[in-house]
Amino acid sequence: MMSPQLSHIDEHGNARMVDVSAKPDTARTAVARGEIRMKPETLALIRAGQMKKGDVLTVAQIAGIQAAKRTSELIPLCHPLPVTKVDIAFEFEDALPGVIITATVKVTGKTGVEMEALTAVSVAALTIYDMAKAVEKTMHIENIRLIEKHGGVSGDVVNESLE
Amino acid sequence: MMSPQLSHIDEHGNARMVDVSAKPDTARTAVARGEIRMKPETLALIRAGQMKKGDVLTVAQIAGIQAAKRTSELIPLCHPLPVTKVDIAFEFEDALPGVIITATVKVTGKTGVEMEALTAVSVAALTIYDMAKAVEKTMHIENIRLIEKHGGVSGDVVNESLE
Amino acid sequence: MMSPQLSHIDEHGNARMVDVSAKPDTARTAVARGEIRMKPETLALIRAGQMKKGDVLTVAQIAGIQAAKRTSELIPLCHPLPVTKVDIAFEFEDALPGVIITATVKVTGKTGVEMEALTAVSVAALTIYDMAKAVEKTMHIENIRLIEKHGGVSGDVVNESLE
Amino acid sequence: MMSPQLSHIDEHGNARMVDVSAKPDTARTAVARGEIRMKPETLALIRAGQMKKGDVLTVAQIAGIQAAKRTSELIPLCHPLPVTKVDIAFEFEDALPGVIITATVKVTGKTGVEMEALTAVSVAALTIYDMAKAVEKTMHIENIRLIEKHGGVSGDVVNESLE
Amino acid sequence: MMSPQLSHIDEHGNARMVDVSAKPDTARTAVARGEIRMKPETLALIRAGQMKKGDVLTVAQIAGIQAAKRTSELIPLCHPLPVTKVDIAFEFEDALPGVIITATVKVTGKTGVEMEALTAVSVAALTIYDMAKAVEKTMHIENIRLIEKHGGVSGDVVNESLE
Amino acid sequence: MMSPQLSHIDEHGNARMVDVSAKPDTARTAVARGEIRMKPETLALIRAGQMKKGDVLTVAQIAGIQAAKRTSELIPLCHPLPVTKVDIAFEFEDALPGVIITATVKVTGKTGVEMEALTAVSVAALTIYDMAKAVEKTMHIENIRLIEKHGGVSGDVVNESLE
Repeated sequence: MMSPQLSHIDEHGNARMVDVSAKPDTARTAVARGEIRMKPETLALIRAGQMKKGDVLTVAQIAGIQAAKRTSELIPLCHPLPVTKVDIAFEFEDALPGVIITATVKVTGKTGVEMEALTAVSVAALTIYDMAKAVEKTMHIENIRLIEKHGGVSGDVVNESLE
Repeated sequence: MMSPQLSHIDEHGNARMVDVSAKPDTARTAVARGEIRMKPETLALIRAGQMKKGDVLTVAQIAGIQAAKRTSELIPLCHPLPVTKVDIAFEFEDALPGVIITATVKVTGKTGVEMEALTAVSVAALTIYDMAKAVEKTMHIENIRLIEKHGGVSGDVVNESLE
Repeated sequence: MMSPQLSHIDEHGNARMVDVSAKPDTARTAVARGEIRMKPETLALIRAGQMKKGDVLTVAQIAGIQAAKRTSELIPLCHPLPVTKVDIAFEFEDALPGVIITATVKVTGKTGVEMEALTAVSVAALTIYDMAKAVEKTMHIENIRLIEKHGGVSGDVVNESLE
Repeated sequence: MMSPQLSHIDEHGNARMVDVSAKPDTARTAVARGEIRMKPETLALIRAGQMKKGDVLTVAQIAGIQAAKRTSELIPLCHPLPVTKVDIAFEFEDALPGVIITATVKVTGKTGVEMEALTAVSVAALTIYDMAKAVEKTMHIENIRLIEKHGGVSGDVVNESLE
Repeated sequence: MMSPQLSHIDEHGNARMVDVSAKPDTARTAVARGEIRMKPETLALIRAGQMKKGDVLTVAQIAGIQAAKRTSELIPLCHPLPVTKVDIAFEFEDALPGVIITATVKVTGKTGVEMEALTAVSVAALTIYDMAKAVEKTMHIENIRLIEKHGGVSGDVVNESLE
Repeated sequence: MMSPQLSHIDEHGNARMVDVSAKPDTARTAVARGEIRMKPETLALIRAGQMKKGDVLTVAQIAGIQAAKRTSELIPLCHPLPVTKVDIAFEFEDALPGVIITATVKVTGKTGVEMEALTAVSVAALTIYDMAKAVEKTMHIENIRLIEKHGGVSGDVVNESLE
C-alpha cells in the first residue's frame, strides 16, 4: 500500500510542478471563504462607506479578481489556467465583527481552481485591511479555507454547505 | 473634533491612493505573523520533507519574498516601495497543529511596509497549502496579523511581543 | 422585454466578471484603430528615423503586442486569453498630421479579443508619445475604436470598412 | 545649432532608454486628460449605476491607478518610478456625450510622470469601454493629452488651464 | 524554390508574431540544457549547502519554473501558453567545474515550448549566479541550447541524446 | 578567520534576501556581455534584416531593457531597484559566427546592478534565438559574464577591458 505523499515533492525530496499534461480538460469550480475581523467601530466605518458608494468592497473585489487571474505567478508550483469566472461576495457579520469573503472560481482545464479561489479571498481580505488600517492596527485575517470543489478525476469535495 | 476616517476613501466616498509625496524617506520595519493549521499527519509529512531537504518551506519562503516585492501590484492602493529586506521564518507547532509564519520587511521610504509583511505571510501560507493539498483538503489559514511596526510619523505599533 | 444592461454589473449594482464557462471555444478576430496627432515637424522626425531604421515604430509595435498579451492584467474584468496572433500596422498620415495605428488580434476562445485590440492600439500610441515627447508636449491620442469583430455567438460587428 | 531630436533614438538611429543617472531627485507632478464618447443611452446606463453604487467608475479608477504604477512595464523606454500619488477623477459630460477622465500623478524622482498620467487615463478609458461594450460597440476614446507638468530641469508645461 | 526566412520578420522587414490560429492543439515537449561554470571552491560551497538543505538549487528551480510560466511576457513575439509541466534538474559537474541545468517543459497547444525550456534554464542559471556572486565574480553561463523537441507539424528535433 | 560564504544562505542553510537597509544610496554601474552562436547562414539572414530595418536586434534590445527593469521579479532574492539607464549594444561577429550582446545598467541605489545587466544580456539572447529558431535549431547562447562593475562598498570589479 502506498502511503500518502505531498504531490509537489518528488521521490528525492525536490519540489516539482505536477505534470497534468495527460489530464483531460473538464469543467471545474471551487469555492473558498475567509474573514477579516475588526473592532465594531471599524466595521461601522466600512459599512457606512458601503451605504454610500461601496468603494472599500469594490476595491477589494477587483483586487481579489485580479489576484485570482495571476495565481500561477504568486504560487510557484501552480499551473497557469484561463479562468472563465471569478465571483467575490461579501457579508457584513456583526457577530465577528467583520466581513466574510466568499470567492467562486470556474475554469475548463486540466487542473482545479482551489488555489485561485483561496488566493482571491486572501488578497480581497488584505485589500480591506489596507483601506482600514489607518483606523485600526489590530485586524486579523482568519479562517481561509476551501468550502467546496467540483470537477476533475479526484472527485468532488464538500467541506461545508454553502448557506 | 475630527472623527476617524478610512484613509483610502475621500470626502466624496471615492477610493483614493493616499498622497505621500510630502513625507520624508525614513527607515521602516514591519513584522506580520499568521499560521496554517492542518491535521497532525499532514504536519508530519511536511516536517519529514523538511528533515530531508526542506523544500516545502523553501518554496513557501521564496513565494512570500516575491509576493512582498509585488505588493503594490496586488493591493490596488498601495504605493510601490523598493524593499531592502524580506525575511520569512517558519516554526512547526504541534499544538495547532500547523506551521507559524513570521515575515519581517524593511524599507527606507515614505510609507510603511505593513502590507508587504502581511502579503508575504499570506502568500507563504497559500504556497504551503498548495503543496500539501493533495493529502488534506481541510487546512485553514488563520490569524494573519500585524505584530509590530516601526518608523514613520504615526509612531511605533507593538501589538504583541516577539518571542 | 429586458432593457439593455451593463454586462459587468450584476443585479445588485456590483462589478462582476462575466461567466463564460459554458461558451464554446470559437475562432475570434478583432480589429481596432486609433491615431496619434502631432505637429508636422514631429511627424517628420519620426518618419526620418523610420527611413533609416524604423525604431520608433518597432518599439511601439513591440509594446502594443506585449500589452495585448497582458490585457487581462490591465482591464480588471477581462478574461485571460491565449492570443494566437497580434499584428500592429502603422501609417503615416500627413492630413492629421500623425500616425494611424491598426491592431488585429486573433484567438480561439470563449470570449472575444476586442479589448486586446484596443489595448494594443492604446499602448502603441502611448509608446510613440513617449519617444517623441522631448520634441513636442502637445500630441493628442485620438479616435481609438473598434473597426470590426468576428466570431462568437453575439455575431459579427463591422463598424467601418478596412481599406 | 543643434536640431531637435527624438530623445529615445541615439545618433545611430537605435532606440535607447535616456540616461537619467545624473539628474537630481525632485518633486514632479503631471496631469493628463482624455474622454470616452458614447451614445446618450450608454452614458445614462453608466450614470444610473453610478447613482446606485458607482461600480463602473470605481473599477476604472482602480484600473487606472494600477496601470500608472506599472507604466515602466508597458512603455518600453520608461524608467521605473516609485509614484507617491495617483488620483483619477471622472466627469459625466452630456455635451460629448461621454465621460471625461483626469489623472494626476506625483513622484519624487529623476524623471517626470507624464507617461504615468497618460497611461492611467488610457487604461481607465479602456476599462469603461470594457464594462459598457455589451450595450454599445461604437464608443470612441478621444483626446488623450497632457494638461500640465511641473518639476524637473526642462521646466513647467501648462497646455491648458485646469478648470 | 523559397529561400529560408526568419519567421518573425514579414516581407517588409517588420517584426511580427507568427499567426498560429489555424494550428491544432497538440502535445508538445521541449528539453533545453545549459551550465554555469565557476571555480572549484565556489562549486564546493554550493554543494555543501546542497548537502545540508539544498537551498541554492531549490531557489534556482523555483525561479526557473516561474520564468517558464512567464516566457511570453519576456520574449516579445512568443505566444502565451498554459504549460502543463516544468521540470528542472541539476547536476554538479567537477569537470567544468559547475552546475548543469536541464529543463523539460510540456504543453498541449498550438505552438512549441522550446523558448519556455530555454528561458527556464537561463533564469535558473542567473539565480545560481546571484546566490554565489558574493564569493565569485567570474562565473560564466554557457552553452544554453535545445536538446530535443517533440510534437507539432514541423516534426521532432533531437540535437543530442539525453543521457 | 571567517571562511567565504554564500551571502544568500544564512547560518541555518536557509535562503535569504540580503538586508541592504543600512547601505547608502550610491551611483552604480555594471556591464555584462554574452553571445549567441549560430551557423553563418543564420547570421547572414539576421544581418540582411538589419541592413534593411534592424528589427531582430531592435526587438532583442527592447526585450533586454524590459527584462532588466523586471530583474527582481525574475531572480527571487534580488532587490527591486529603480534603474536609471539600460543600454544594450550588438556586434555581428563572423568569427563565432554570431552576435555579441553587451548590456550596461546604471542605478543610484543600495545595491549593485550586476544581475540586471546579466539578465538583460540573457533575455536579449533568448529573443534573438526566438526570432531565428525557424531557420536553425542548433544556436547556442554562450559566455554570459560580468565585464565590470563600479560603485558600492565592495569596490570596483574589472574582469575584462571593454574594447
